[in-house]
Amino acid sequence: MNHPESLNTLVNQNSLSDLAAPLLQQIAEAWTALQTQQPLVHIITNGVANNYTANVLLAAGASPAMIDNPFEAESFAAIASAVSINLGMPTTEQMQAMQIAAQTAQRLDKPWVLDPVGYGPVLPWRSEMTQQLLQYTPSVIRGNASEISALAGNQVQSKGVDSTLDSAEIYQQAVPLLEHTACIAISGESDFILSKDLNAVIQINGGSHLQPKITASGCALGALIAAYCAVSPSVTAGTAAAHVHFAIAGKLAFEKAQAVGSFNVAFLDELFNLKADSIQQYADIQILPL
Amino acid sequence: MNHPESLNTLVNQNSLSDLAAPLLQQIAEAWTALQTQQPLVHIITNGVANNYTANVLLAAGASPAMIDNPFEAESFAAIASAVSINLGMPTTEQMQAMQIAAQTAQRLDKPWVLDPVGYGPVLPWRSEMTQQLLQYTPSVIRGNASEISALAGNQVQSKGVDSTLDSAEIYQQAVPLLEHTACIAISGESDFILSKDLNAVIQINGGSHLQPKITASGCALGALIAAYCAVSPSVTAGTAAAHVHFAIAGKLAFEKAQAVGSFNVAFLDELFNLKADSIQQYADIQILPL
Amino acid sequence: MNHPESLNTLVNQNSLSDLAAPLLQQIAEAWTALQTQQPLVHIITNGVANNYTANVLLAAGASPAMIDNPFEAESFAAIASAVSINLGMPTTEQMQAMQIAAQTAQRLDKPWVLDPVGYGPVLPWRSEMTQQLLQYTPSVIRGNASEISALAGNQVQSKGVDSTLDSAEIYQQAVPLLEHTACIAISGESDFILSKDLNAVIQINGGSHLQPKITASGCALGALIAAYCAVSPSVTAGTAAAHVHFAIAGKLAFEKAQAVGSFNVAFLDELFNLKADSIQQYADIQILPL
Repeated sequence: MNHPESLNTLVNQNSLSDLAAPLLQQIAEAWTALQTQQPLVHIITNGVANNYTANVLLAAGASPAMIDNPFEAESFAAIASAVSINLGMPTTEQMQAMQIAAQTAQRLDKPWVLDPVGYGPVLPWRSEMTQQLLQYTPSVIRGNASEISALAGNQVQSKGVDSTLDSAEIYQQAVPLLEHTACIAISGESDFILSKDLNAVIQINGGSHLQPKITASGCALGALIAAYCAVSPSVTAGTAAAHVHFAIAGKLAFEKAQAVGSFNVAFLDELFNLKADSIQQYADIQILPL
Repeated sequence: MNHPESLNTLVNQNSLSDLAAPLLQQIAEAWTALQTQQPLVHIITNGVANNYTANVLLAAGASPAMIDNPFEAESFAAIASAVSINLGMPTTEQMQAMQIAAQTAQRLDKPWVLDPVGYGPVLPWRSEMTQQLLQYTPSVIRGNASEISALAGNQVQSKGVDSTLDSAEIYQQAVPLLEHTACIAISGESDFILSKDLNAVIQINGGSHLQPKITASGCALGALIAAYCAVSPSVTAGTAAAHVHFAIAGKLAFEKAQAVGSFNVAFLDELFNLKADSIQQYADIQILPL
Repeated sequence: MNHPESLNTLVNQNSLSDLAAPLLQQIAEAWTALQTQQPLVHIITNGVANNYTANVLLAAGASPAMIDNPFEAESFAAIASAVSINLGMPTTEQMQAMQIAAQTAQRLDKPWVLDPVGYGPVLPWRSEMTQQLLQYTPSVIRGNASEISALAGNQVQSKGVDSTLDSAEIYQQAVPLLEHTACIAISGESDFILSKDLNAVIQINGGSHLQPKITASGCALGALIAAYCAVSPSVTAGTAAAHVHFAIAGKLAFEKAQAVGSFNVAFLDELFNLKADSIQQYADIQILPL
């Protein structure tokens, strides 16, 4: 993988800031489309995330379905509007289902999201599978800073499934991964979305420092990205919409509750209460050069 | 399967309304029995529903145990007071356990509930298993309108595990399924319970439009039906009691909280706080001809 | 297994009460160490407990990771600070992972906790595995009164995974299990910790009668014991610290909320809000002869 640093020379800061307003407009429209279309998302995720992910998608407006056996993965991916694959706690049957679902999504040109949870040498089984899944060209790869940095080929000290790195410091390391996908989303204190079609990086601020204290919130975000991609004009807009939805809900939830239990309840409430207006009011995004 | 339309001629509206008061009495008694006996329910359910179902049953007064491996399914079903089988996210081992548990329940004459999540041609593996499980004569079949309509042989457009149909419009389609079970429960805006022994349909109003926004609430209801059947004079009374318990808790929870996160917390609180008195006060049931 | 009753003669009540103050000091220091070190805990647990356990550990200050496949269990146990193994809903793959993780923990001298959920003749598959796991010398065995009594060789009437016995009445039955472990923790209305190195029993009061109404709270406690053992001077201190953290959070949560849904939210809040000062203020422990 070569780092396409030359891309940096293609954009300049002025033209970049012009991209923010239309993107925000697309995000608000994507939110409306999510409410009206309630896209069916085929989700293969882990035992920590199943319930929470389903509740997050229902709160946000989508229709989740967890189908993770290899005998139904093809027929279900074929009727779903998007597919979300998360490697958090794989079983042998899930691994088979993941390949089938990813292949089906690619074949039928449906958006699909890859979340390479725990990628790295300490967890070789899933890491090999993640490499295999890359051949099906995920629409979006999303993860925390450690996972994305490791997937981009860097040596990262593993702290299990939590990140030891800062998204702001490593997002540029992810550029080579654009060989495999149109869009890379890195969650952290600020979120960074590397977009091939925008040829830029979207930085999204907001959320709360309590978010990493709620298990599976990143996993749920991955599935929400898939949902938004199903109703958005581009995977970039869809990915940004999911992140903005999360960031605003997290920010407003923290204003209501500062401890993890009640914050999580408030977060689901705010995901549910968000309106298109709130997006225009609260979204905090910046466009950076790739 | 023949549609036994002739049953409709056996009842009339007058005699039906006479059934409501004694049924309500049985429901209140079932609630008391649930609190005192805390029946052990053997539950095989899906990864989205496991935690929530257990918490719902504990809140309502029952004692849940998730035993879903084939090596312990027979011995555990044999000591449980009821069995609940849900096809939401089957694994190969779960599929084996389901057959063993259903067979054991039938052999030992224990009530068991079948929840055919996602039944239909898009999910053939579970649908074949559902057909096989019918041979063990479930005490109750419960599902949403899409699942029950599909199981009754109708073509239904799949939206994953959520219903695309209205329970009020399809409950009569479920009559042929009474060949396989004593009781069919269809959840929706209103719930409909088709009872062979009552030769009538029980309509239960209440709940909240937020209920379908809480994942696995239908799955948890299925397990609660099993719990109530273990302590009720009939599967009809047990099934109705579980639905009434849910409907009242949902209604009271919505008075407290109108967003999904806090609604769900309030719902568990209200399941827990329900008293026999509240059943008499809030239950909203009607008896209709079959 | 011989019951080492002679141990009782080695201690007297005076010297025992002298042990409480230094233990409390160790517990407060363990809490601080948990916050600063955020130990990575390798957890293999059941489908009911996965999400809740992760959220409990994050709230309390630890870093949980659920890795339950046999292909990654060894490499992950090797980098984790502690291992927690719970037999609540085993699958064939999990069973293999449990053996590998336990063996690795023993080989690398890392603390590991065994939670023999449902141990007894009604659930023979897990019970055989539990016996096999004992050969890897768990640092701590924790369970409810029924499970510990059954594991110590007594006949216990099974009520699934809930206890039918009182911890205060059976804790002395657990003494023979000290042949296999340094520490046995029995949760109940009061918790009892049998410590080989202290040669005493620690009784911990507090919590709430609602705790058994929250599913998987015992399972989550087991994983929290593992987390604390990773940062404590002894497994006794670590085990006591986890129990005290739970007991205080449960007590304070019940002051805020008396129904199960809101109690559970408050419980997570209080796990998160606990400070070293609160431990000194609220901990209610007594030292008893072994």
